[in-house]
Amino acid sequence: MKRVINFNAGPSTLPLEVLEEAQRELVDFHGNGLSIMEASHRSKMYDEVHNEAIDLMRELYKIPDDYAVMLLQGGASMQFAMVPMNLYKGGSVEFANTGAWSKKAIKEAQIQKCNVKIVADSSESNFDHIPEVVFSDDADYAHITSNNTIYGTQYKTFPQTKSPLVVDASSDIFSYPVDWNKIDMMYAGAQKNAGPSGVTIVIMKKSLIENGNEDIPTIFRYKTHADANSLYNTPPTFGIYMLSLMMKWLKNKGGVEAIAKHNEAKAKLLYDAIDNSNGFYVGHAQKESRSLMNVSFNIKDKDADLEAKLIKEAEANDMIGLKGHRSVGGLRASIYNAMTLESVEKLVDLMERFQKENA
Amino acid sequence: MKRVINFNAGPSTLPLEVLEEAQRELVDFHGNGLSIMEASHRSKMYDEVHNEAIDLMRELYKIPDDYAVMLLQGGASMQFAMVPMNLYKGGSVEFANTGAWSKKAIKEAQIQKCNVKIVADSSESNFDHIPEVVFSDDADYAHITSNNTIYGTQYKTFPQTKSPLVVDASSDIFSYPVDWNKIDMMYAGAQKNAGPSGVTIVIMKKSLIENGNEDIPTIFRYKTHADANSLYNTPPTFGIYMLSLMMKWLKNKGGVEAIAKHNEAKAKLLYDAIDNSNGFYVGHAQKESRSLMNVSFNIKDKDADLEAKLIKEAEANDMIGLKGHRSVGGLRASIYNAMTLESVEKLVDLMERFQKENA
Repeated sequence: MKRVINFNAGPSTLPLEVLEEAQRELVDFHGNGLSIMEASHRSKMYDEVHNEAIDLMRELYKIPDDYAVMLLQGGASMQFAMVPMNLYKGGSVEFANTGAWSKKAIKEAQIQKCNVKIVADSSESNFDHIPEVVFSDDADYAHITSNNTIYGTQYKTFPQTKSPLVVDASSDIFSYPVDWNKIDMMYAGAQKNAGPSGVTIVIMKKSLIENGNEDIPTIFRYKTHADANSLYNTPPTFGIYMLSLMMKWLKNKGGVEAIAKHNEAKAKLLYDAIDNSNGFYVGHAQKESRSLMNVSFNIKDKDADLEAKLIKEAEANDMIGLKGHRSVGGLRASIYNAMTLESVEKLVDLMERFQKENA
Repeated sequence: MKRVINFNAGPSTLPLEVLEEAQRELVDFHGNGLSIMEASHRSKMYDEVHNEAIDLMRELYKIPDDYAVMLLQGGASMQFAMVPMNLYKGGSVEFANTGAWSKKAIKEAQIQKCNVKIVADSSESNFDHIPEVVFSDDADYAHITSNNTIYGTQYKTFPQTKSPLVVDASSDIFSYPVDWNKIDMMYAGAQKNAGPSGVTIVIMKKSLIENGNEDIPTIFRYKTHADANSLYNTPPTFGIYMLSLMMKWLKNKGGVEAIAKHNEAKAKLLYDAIDNSNGFYVGHAQKESRSLMNVSFNIKDKDADLEAKLIKEAEANDMIGLKGHRSVGGLRASIYNAMTLESVEKLVDLMERFQKENA
C-alpha cells in the first residue's frame, strides 16, 4: 500500500493507525452488526463513542469543570457568526487582526452591526508576526486567532484581559497545553489536529453560555447544545467517532504535553533548515512569531520557478500539499500533531539536496 | 461477520456493498496514498468526489438546470433557521403543521418574528394524516414536511401554490420521483436515504437564491454556497464521499424510479401484515396518508407489555431500532431506500408468528 507524506493545511494527515482502526471496524462496529455510521444517535452504542470523545478531550486538554465541551457543525466559519449572535450585548467587541481568518471573523461581527474595535493589526507587514495585543477590560468579548495557518504565525502567550477572551484555535487545538485561566471560549474545526472535517469543537465557560443572548434561532444558541450534551439534533456521528479515535491516539502518545514536545522538535528541524540555508530559504514569519503547526517559506527572491520545481520534486518523492497559499506564495509545510518526525526529516533532506543542486 | 437488520429512523441502515466499498478504500483512496478524509477540499482528488455526488443527484433526481444543489451542514434543524433568514421579506410565511418537525420549523420562523400562518394542522388527531393544504399565492414562502418520520405519514401529492414552496424532505428524499414544477426549494439531512449524518442537501431555484436577503451572516446565505459550489468553507468531505457512493449505488439499482417501486413493495408487505391481522396490529397513520418510509403501529389496545415483548423478540432475531417514538408509542419500522425486501419479509414473518403466539 502506498502512503504519501501529506503536508496539506486541512483537511490534513491522520495517523495511519487511526485510519486502520476505523477501517477494521467500519462495517461491523465492535461486533454490534452495523457500522457506527448506521447507529442511531440516541443509541447506547453511539452514546459511548460520543461521551468518550468528550471525556478524553476534557482529560487530555485539562478542561476545567466550569467549561462545557460542545461538538457542533459548520466549522470556524459558522463560529464567526455564532459568537457575535450569542455574545454581543451592544457594547463593543475587540479583535486582533493577524490574518485571513481574523479578517473573516471581524467581517462577520461587522455584518451583525457590532461595534467592532481592532486593537492590533499586522496587515501592513503581510501578517508576518503576532503584534502586541492589549484588549480593554469591558468589551462584550475579545477575539484572537491563536495560529494563522496561511502566514505561519502563532501566539506564544495569550493576552490577559478581563473581557471574555474567545480563541479561534482551528489550526493548533490540542497541540500544546493552554492556560484556561486566560480563555473563556475556544473553538476549532476538527480537520487539522482532531479528525475529519464536519465536526466543530467549542469549549466554553458555562457562565458565558448562560449569559448568552436568548432571542436567536435555537440551533445557533450555545445553550441549546450545552444543555443537550450536543445531542439537540443529529450530530455528525462518524466525524465524532473519528475524533474519539484521535483522542485515544493522542492519549497513547502521552497526551498534549508530550505531543507539544514532539511538535517543537518537528518545527525546529524545519526552521533550522531555513535558518541554516544561507538565505536560500526565507521564512515568512518573524522568528518570535513562528508557528509550530504551519511553516510558510519562500525561496530567495521569491523565485516562483524554483519554488514550483521544489514542489514538483517533493511530489515525485511522495510529499504532497506543499504549495503555499497565494497570499504568501512559496511553500507551506503543515505539520500538525499527526505528522511524524521522520516525515519532516524527509522534507528537510529534500530541501538540503534541492539547495545544493539549485543554489 | 454479524449483520443486523436496522430499522432505526436515522441515522439508519446503509447498503452493505456501500460500506464495504468505503472500507476497502478508507486508508488508501484509489491508489493516491491517503484517505479521502485526509485530502484537501481544494484538491483534484476531492473535487472529483464532490462533483460526482452533485452530478449524480442532478441526474437521478432529474433536478432542472435552474436549481442549485448545495451540500451544507447542520441538518434540517439548521434549515429551520436559515430558510426564514434568507426568504422572509416582511410579508407572511405559511406552514402545514403535520408533526414534530413541522412544529420545529414553525417555532424557528416565530423566533425570527416572521408573520406565521398555519394553513393546515393535523395535531388534533395526533398527526395521523396529511390534511388538505391550501396555501395563499402571495406568501414569502410556504413550507411542508413531505414525510413525517415519527407519525408515519407522507404527502402523496404536493400542494400547488404560486408562493415559493419549501419542502423538508429529510426522511424521503430520493425515494420517489418528484415534480419540480411544484417545488422551489427542498432540503434534507443525508442520514436517512443518502448517507451518514453531517451532510445537509439543499436543492433550490436559482432565482430564489438570488432574491434572498443580503444582510445576514455570510455562512447562512444560500448565495454564498451556491456561488462557491459548496466550497465556501471546508465541507464535510467524508460525508459527501459517502453520499457519492450512495448515489452510485442508487444508480446501479435503477435510479429513483426503480427504488420507488421497491419502496412501494416493501411498505405494502408491512401494511398488508397490519391490515390482515384482524386488529392485532393497528397502524397509526390513516390509510390514505401512509408513509412508504416509516411504518408506525401499535398492538391492539396499545398494549405496552406486548409491544415491549415484540421489540425484545425482534432484537433476539437481530432486528433493531423498532421502538416507536414516545409520542406515538408502539413500534416503528423505518424502511428507507437501503432496507431490503428480504429484511422486511423477516419482520413480517416475525409479526405473524408473534401474533399467533400472543393473540
